[in-house]
Amino acid sequence: MIECETKNKTETPQRIRVGVIGGGQLARMMVPPALHLGLEISVLAESEGMSAARAADAVGDYRDLQTVLDFAANVDVVTFDHEHVPGTILTELQARGHAVYPPPQALQYAQNKLLMREKLVELKVATPKWMPVKNETELADFLAECGGKAVVKTLRGGYDGKGVRVITGVVEVADWLRELAPGDALLAEELVNFKREVSQLVARRPDGEMRVWPLVETVQKNGVCAEVIAPAPVLDGYDTSSRAAQIGKTIAEGAGAVGVVAVEMFECANGDLLVNELAMRPHNSGHFTIEGSVTSQFEQHLRAVCNLPLGEVAMTAPVAVMINVLGGPSAGSMLSQYQQVLAQYPAAKVHSYGKASRPGRKVGHVTVTGDNLSRVLADAHAAARLFDA
Amino acid sequence: MIECETKNKTETPQRIRVGVIGGGQLARMMVPPALHLGLEISVLAESEGMSAARAADAVGDYRDLQTVLDFAANVDVVTFDHEHVPGTILTELQARGHAVYPPPQALQYAQNKLLMREKLVELKVATPKWMPVKNETELADFLAECGGKAVVKTLRGGYDGKGVRVITGVVEVADWLRELAPGDALLAEELVNFKREVSQLVARRPDGEMRVWPLVETVQKNGVCAEVIAPAPVLDGYDTSSRAAQIGKTIAEGAGAVGVVAVEMFECANGDLLVNELAMRPHNSGHFTIEGSVTSQFEQHLRAVCNLPLGEVAMTAPVAVMINVLGGPSAGSMLSQYQQVLAQYPAAKVHSYGKASRPGRKVGHVTVTGDNLSRVLADAHAAARLFDA
Repeated sequence: MIECETKNKTETPQRIRVGVIGGGQLARMMVPPALHLGLEISVLAESEGMSAARAADAVGDYRDLQTVLDFAANVDVVTFDHEHVPGTILTELQARGHAVYPPPQALQYAQNKLLMREKLVELKVATPKWMPVKNETELADFLAECGGKAVVKTLRGGYDGKGVRVITGVVEVADWLRELAPGDALLAEELVNFKREVSQLVARRPDGEMRVWPLVETVQKNGVCAEVIAPAPVLDGYDTSSRAAQIGKTIAEGAGAVGVVAVEMFECANGDLLVNELAMRPHNSGHFTIEGSVTSQFEQHLRAVCNLPLGEVAMTAPVAVMINVLGGPSAGSMLSQYQQVLAQYPAAKVHSYGKASRPGRKVGHVTVTGDNLSRVLADAHAAARLFDA
Repeated sequence: MIECETKNKTETPQRIRVGVIGGGQLARMMVPPALHLGLEISVLAESEGMSAARAADAVGDYRDLQTVLDFAANVDVVTFDHEHVPGTILTELQARGHAVYPPPQALQYAQNKLLMREKLVELKVATPKWMPVKNETELADFLAECGGKAVVKTLRGGYDGKGVRVITGVVEVADWLRELAPGDALLAEELVNFKREVSQLVARRPDGEMRVWPLVETVQKNGVCAEVIAPAPVLDGYDTSSRAAQIGKTIAEGAGAVGVVAVEMFECANGDLLVNELAMRPHNSGHFTIEGSVTSQFEQHLRAVCNLPLGEVAMTAPVAVMINVLGGPSAGSMLSQYQQVLAQYPAAKVHSYGKASRPGRKVGHVTVTGDNLSRVLADAHAAARLFDA
């Protein structure tokens, strides 16, 4: 257990050690607030030279129980850069007395899309129409019901558009159906004709304290988050942001999440909010918070999983826009276009994840804050576009 | 040399490696912007477990040439957490082709108070009346000239009030005079009856580009920076901030500094600005920039020493107040009072340097930003005071 929870007031902890499983950019971006807060952060990276290498005290396979146990032995709380650690390993960690946040009982909803949707039904949170499908017949029926077009997702392991296909015929996921383990299923969903996509970030402590950031609008390209506008511009006639906040809190609380929760939603023409995806960790739609919020999602995640009081989530400026930088056709790091961006946009905050560039890979992002949405958007786009040169 | 300078446009660098000599909190606070910018940062720490331990790839004595050469061999540019690396070592690094920023030819002015004052005379920058004194007779003469009271400083190695004494008789620095090496001196200065103290931060690149932050007011207690108000409140009748900015630029350029330069000044009742001290590295009076400026002094220092274009230095809020947290009589880390501060002041940004607490030692700081100076000041003081409990 975390020392700060188990020791009494006269025995206050001298340090809090946070262990992050996964060495990607989310772990990397947890390092700055850990240093500022005086938390000791360690990362279990999948391999050498990853994005979070600076904090990688261990390198190993997160699917190996002993590797994870050895890592957990040297920290006070275990948290995550991704949702791929098997639940069996996490419940074993818990059974041995380790603090794991988010707990596996909550994390399962971010790990399995079917469990998530069943939980959302229980919580009375609206989603696109969905159906688990085990074979071609079930999928064909669902397709017919949906007018011949549907989204099909694998239950586990998808991200950034991976594990998601929009189909008009069952043959388009024949490979997935063929590879299904006995008893397993795919998730079929109606294709929602949404007005825009929004994302609600919430942080929750073990004791239930929650903080809810302003709702943001997200723009996806090829299934990858491309752009975030914070706060989401107000559309006439709907109390979108307060309903989204309520949905976020309902899910974080109902799932028993600890740490940052990101709820991605479709906003429909009639104002309905339908939950699309769920993440239980800092999320791409929250990168704007590094500069745009009094407390960033990375700081807040650490505060939450360490059971420290949560920070203020107000924005630091009227508007923040974040644009992802993806690896281009030419290999190479972001540094090649770096100087030009810094020179032309001195107020843009450039984030480079220290990753080798591969086409379509998230290698960094740019955030611009300001008073005027049009201008901030234009600057952020122009700065980010220079990386495509 | 730095790769980005030596390679041509078609051979852009894949990475920039910055080496910081010294493992204190200034090096620690360079790590977050290095990670965000995608720079590889390494620290040569004096010992294990220092404030910047997370980035300490080497531990050794910065006064040992071979130790510093070995460290420099693995980085593209060498910079500093403190000003104590001997000039002989730095010129040797330069002679062997290493990029050293600030260069020793500039750093000497921050290393030797007499050289600094001679340079300020050359640059026509006003200072308190000063005199090098080699013996009791010279000091007695200066004391008499100054009405029987003066400040005496050792030429090298002083910081946070160390190496500084206010005296009314020569006997009070008899030990220092006795220990003077042949040809060496102490610096005697008039005691200035100032209205307030201010600090001007400037950043300068090798190519001469400069950025000047808003002037800040500093409050010192026992020779240690206790509080910083940014921007310095405007006092009627004097164009203080523009004159201070000019002084900062004159010194940074005149000294050939690269990186962040902090110029501490006395503001006198008649509006005169007298330069008191000079630092060529991120400085305590600039910690507010982490949250209070679009580009923090730590990010800017890295950009400058890596010869990257400098960032915007505008404030992110109308007011920022920074209060230092000093170690109290009871040993222990800041964590003991941590939860209370975070709970009561969710908008305060708490920085803990990961240092063992010793009475009077800087162990962290708190920054609050906002619209209203009185309120921000009150909150910052109240939050910081909780650490004294």
